[in-house]
Amino acid sequence: MLQTINLGLKTNSYCIAIGDRGISRLGELLIAEKFKKDLKILLVTNPEVFLPYGEEVVKHLQSKGFQVRSLIIEAGEESKTQETIQRIHDAAFVQHLERGSLIIALGGGVVGDMAGFAAATWLRGISIVQVPTTLLAMVDAAIGGKTGVNHPGGKNLIGSFHQPSLVLIDPTTLKTLPSREFRAGMAEIIKYGIIGSPALLYHLEQSDSLSSQENIPSDSLKSILKYSVQTKAQIVMEDEREGSLRAILNYGHTLGHVVETLTNYNTYLHGEAVALGMIAAGEIACMLNLWTQDMQSRQKKLIEKAGLPLVWPKLPLNSVLSCLQGDKKVQEGKVRFVLPTGLGKVVIKNDVPKEMITHLLNRISGE
Amino acid sequence: MLQTINLGLKTNSYCIAIGDRGISRLGELLIAEKFKKDLKILLVTNPEVFLPYGEEVVKHLQSKGFQVRSLIIEAGEESKTQETIQRIHDAAFVQHLERGSLIIALGGGVVGDMAGFAAATWLRGISIVQVPTTLLAMVDAAIGGKTGVNHPGGKNLIGSFHQPSLVLIDPTTLKTLPSREFRAGMAEIIKYGIIGSPALLYHLEQSDSLSSQENIPSDSLKSILKYSVQTKAQIVMEDEREGSLRAILNYGHTLGHVVETLTNYNTYLHGEAVALGMIAAGEIACMLNLWTQDMQSRQKKLIEKAGLPLVWPKLPLNSVLSCLQGDKKVQEGKVRFVLPTGLGKVVIKNDVPKEMITHLLNRISGE
Ligand SMILES: NC(=O)c1ccc[n+]([C@@H]2O[C@H](COP(=O)([O-])OP(=O)(O)OC[C@H]3O[C@@H](n4cnc5c(N)ncnc54)[C@H](O)[C@@H]3O)[C@@H](O)[C@H]2O)c1
Ligand SMILES: NC(=O)c1ccc[n+]([C@@H]2O[C@H](COP(=O)([O-])OP(=O)(O)OC[C@H]3O[C@@H](n4cnc5c(N)ncnc54)[C@H](O)[C@@H]3O)[C@@H](O)[C@H]2O)c1
Ligand SMILES: [Zn+2]
Ligand SMILES: [Zn+2]
Repeated sequence: MLQTINLGLKTNSYCIAIGDRGISRLGELLIAEKFKKDLKILLVTNPEVFLPYGEEVVKHLQSKGFQVRSLIIEAGEESKTQETIQRIHDAAFVQHLERGSLIIALGGGVVGDMAGFAAATWLRGISIVQVPTTLLAMVDAAIGGKTGVNHPGGKNLIGSFHQPSLVLIDPTTLKTLPSREFRAGMAEIIKYGIIGSPALLYHLEQSDSLSSQENIPSDSLKSILKYSVQTKAQIVMEDEREGSLRAILNYGHTLGHVVETLTNYNTYLHGEAVALGMIAAGEIACMLNLWTQDMQSRQKKLIEKAGLPLVWPKLPLNSVLSCLQGDKKVQEGKVRFVLPTGLGKVVIKNDVPKEMITHLLNRISGE
Repeated sequence: MLQTINLGLKTNSYCIAIGDRGISRLGELLIAEKFKKDLKILLVTNPEVFLPYGEEVVKHLQSKGFQVRSLIIEAGEESKTQETIQRIHDAAFVQHLERGSLIIALGGGVVGDMAGFAAATWLRGISIVQVPTTLLAMVDAAIGGKTGVNHPGGKNLIGSFHQPSLVLIDPTTLKTLPSREFRAGMAEIIKYGIIGSPALLYHLEQSDSLSSQENIPSDSLKSILKYSVQTKAQIVMEDEREGSLRAILNYGHTLGHVVETLTNYNTYLHGEAVALGMIAAGEIACMLNLWTQDMQSRQKKLIEKAGLPLVWPKLPLNSVLSCLQGDKKVQEGKVRFVLPTGLGKVVIKNDVPKEMITHLLNRISGE
C-alpha cells in the first residue's frame, strides 16, 4: 500500500508516495501521472544502487511499455560536477529525449541533485522523477526542487530550482544502505522534529532505537518518513524559492557547515556535522534563554540514540570564526543562526554576539 | 527620453526600456528597480561590443556606486558552450556574486543567452539584466527569458527559462553593428508584423528603407523597435513557457532551420534563413488557400526592401525532407508549420501534405 503526500505549489504540484516495494509500482504511478506508455525515459543511477535495484526497475518499466535506458554515473561528492552533467546531457541526446520525456533519478542525494539539474537544463526543462534510496535523500534532497552541482569554489554553487513530477520513496531500498549513511539521514529527521513537528519528535522519542534500519520496525520507520516528508513539504509549500521561511531548514547547518569545511569534508558525513551543529545551536539558544536545558537534553538524547556524534571536534577557534563569516548563509556580513525556541519552533537570529559563540566553542571543544 | 513596455508575468514582471543613449542611464534604471547602491555586478560582454560601449558602461555604473567587474568572452556561435558558462561561473565566484547580486549581458543574442543561463544557474538563479546590442537581440533574444547554450548534438539544447529583471534597448548602439546583422534582425521584425502586428506591418511598408540603420530615421527605428517588442512581449505574457501560443514565434523557422542546417550554419545568418522560411511558409499557406497571393507579395516586398535573400537555395530534396522530420519542432513525428492566414494572424498546421512540400520545393529551388 502506498501512502501519498501532496506537495501543492502554484505551478507543479506533485505527489510524494511512500510504501514498501514501491519501486515495483513505479510504472503504474507514472501512468497515473499521465505519462504516456511509449514515454522515453533516461534512468540515472550509480553502481551501488544499480546493482541491487536498477535492473529490476528497468525491466519493470520496460514491461509497462516505456522506452528506458540507464546511465550509470559515479556518485561520490567529488563527481558532483558540470562534467557529470555533460555526461547526462550526452545520454539525453543519445536517448533522443524530447520535451515530454522523462529522467528518473534512482539513488542518493548526489544522483538526485545531478539528474535533477540535468533535467532542469535539458531543452529548458524536462520532467524529473525522484526515487531516493538514502534516508537523507528520502526526507530531504528529493523533496523541494533544489538541484545542482559543486563548483571548484564551493558546494552546490551551480544549480536551479526544478520541482520533480513525482517522488517515490521505497523504504525497503534502505536495507542495503550502509548504517552510517542511515544515521546521517536520521540527523535531518531529528532536525525536522525540532524545527517543525512535535508529533515527529514524540515518535522519535518513543522509538527504542534510531541507529540502524534493522532496529526500527517497518511501520515505525514509515511513520517517521511520513512525518519528515510532511514537515519538509509544508515548508517548501510555504516558501518554494527560499525566500525566508525555508531558511529554518538550515537549523544545525551553520556550525555544521563549519565542521564539514574545517575537516575537509572527509571526517564527518553531512548529517553527522549537522548533529554537532544542532547541539551547538541548542546551546546558543539556551544561553539566550530562548529554550530550556530540558529541551536541549531531549535533543541530545535523540542524537545519541541515533548513534550520531555528540562531541564538538578540536578546531582552531580562529578558523571557526572566519569560516562562519564566509558562510553562504551570511546576509550582509551577519551570521544567521536558526535557534530553537520550543517544541517544533525556531527563530532566525543574526545578532548572536560573537563573544557568545567564542565562549561556547571554548566550552564545548573536545570537552 | 526612455519609453517603457511592461512585460507582466505571474511572477517576475519586468520592464523593457527603449531610448537613445539608454546605456548612459542604466545606473538610474537599476536603482529604480530597487537594486542596492553597493550591488555587486558582473558585466558579461565580448570584444566587439566592449570596445565601443563596455568601458563607458563600467565607468558609468561605478560612478553610481556599484561594484562592477567585466568579463569579456568570445561570442561566436561556436563559443556558445558549457565551457563558456563555466568561465562566467568562475568569474561570478571571483566577483563573490551572492543571491542579491546581478549579471548584466551587454551584447548580441549569444552573449545574452549565455550570461542569462549562467545567471539562471548561479546559486540557483540570480538576477540578469539584458542590454542587447544587435537588432535581433533587441527584438527577440533579450525578451522572454529563454537562455541557453549549444550541445554538440544541436543548438540551444541546454538551457533554462530565466526572465530578466530589466531589458534596456539603446538603438544608438546599432551604429556599429554590421549591416548584414542589422538586416538579419529585420527578418524577425517582419515576422512579428506577419504573425501579430498589423500596425508594425503598416509601419514597415511605409518605411523608405529597411536595409540598414543609417537609412532609417531614428524615430522610425524606435517605433519599429517598440512595435516589435510589444508583439513579442504580448506573446510571452500569454505563454511564458512555450506551452502552445509561443510556437507562433516559429513562423518561418521550420524551413529556415532546414536551410541553416543543410548549409552548415556558415552560409546564411539566422535571419536570412528565416526570410527564406517565411517566403516558403507563405507559399504553402497560399497553396492551402489560407492566405492570398496579394499578401504573399506584400511579404516578399518587405523582405526584399530589407535586403534579405528571396531565392531558395539549391538543396537536395531528400536532405530537406529528412531534416524536416528531425526538426525539434516536430510533435509526434509530424512537422508543424506556422502559416499566415491574414494581417497579423497565423495558424499552426501539422498536416501539410508531404507532396505539397515536395511540389513547392521543386518549384522554388533555385528558381
Ligand atoms: N537538493 C536538496 O535539497 C538537498 C538536500 C540535502 C542534501 N543534498 C545533497 O545530497 C547529497 C548527499 O546525499 P546522500 O546523503 O544521499 O549521499 P549520496 O548520494 O552520496 O549517497 C551516499 C552513499 O550511499 C550509497 N547508496 C545510496 N543508496 C543506497 C542504497 N539503497 N543501498 C546501498 N548504497 C546506497 C551511494 O552510492 C553513496 O555511496 C549532497 O551532495 C547534498 O548536497 C541536496
Ligand atoms: N533567447 C532567445 O529567445 C533567442 C531568440 C533568438 C535568438 N537567440 C540566440 O541569439 C543568438 C544570435 O544572436 P545575434 O543575432 O544577436 O548574434 P550575435 O550575438 O552572434 O552577434 C552578432 C555579431 O554582432 C557583433 N555585435 C553585437 N552587437 C554589436 C554592436 N552593437 N556593434 C558591433 N558589433 C556588434 C557580435 O560581436 C557578433 O559578432 C543565437 O545564438 C540564437 O540562438 C536567442
Ligand atoms: Zn542538510
Ligand atoms: Zn529566430
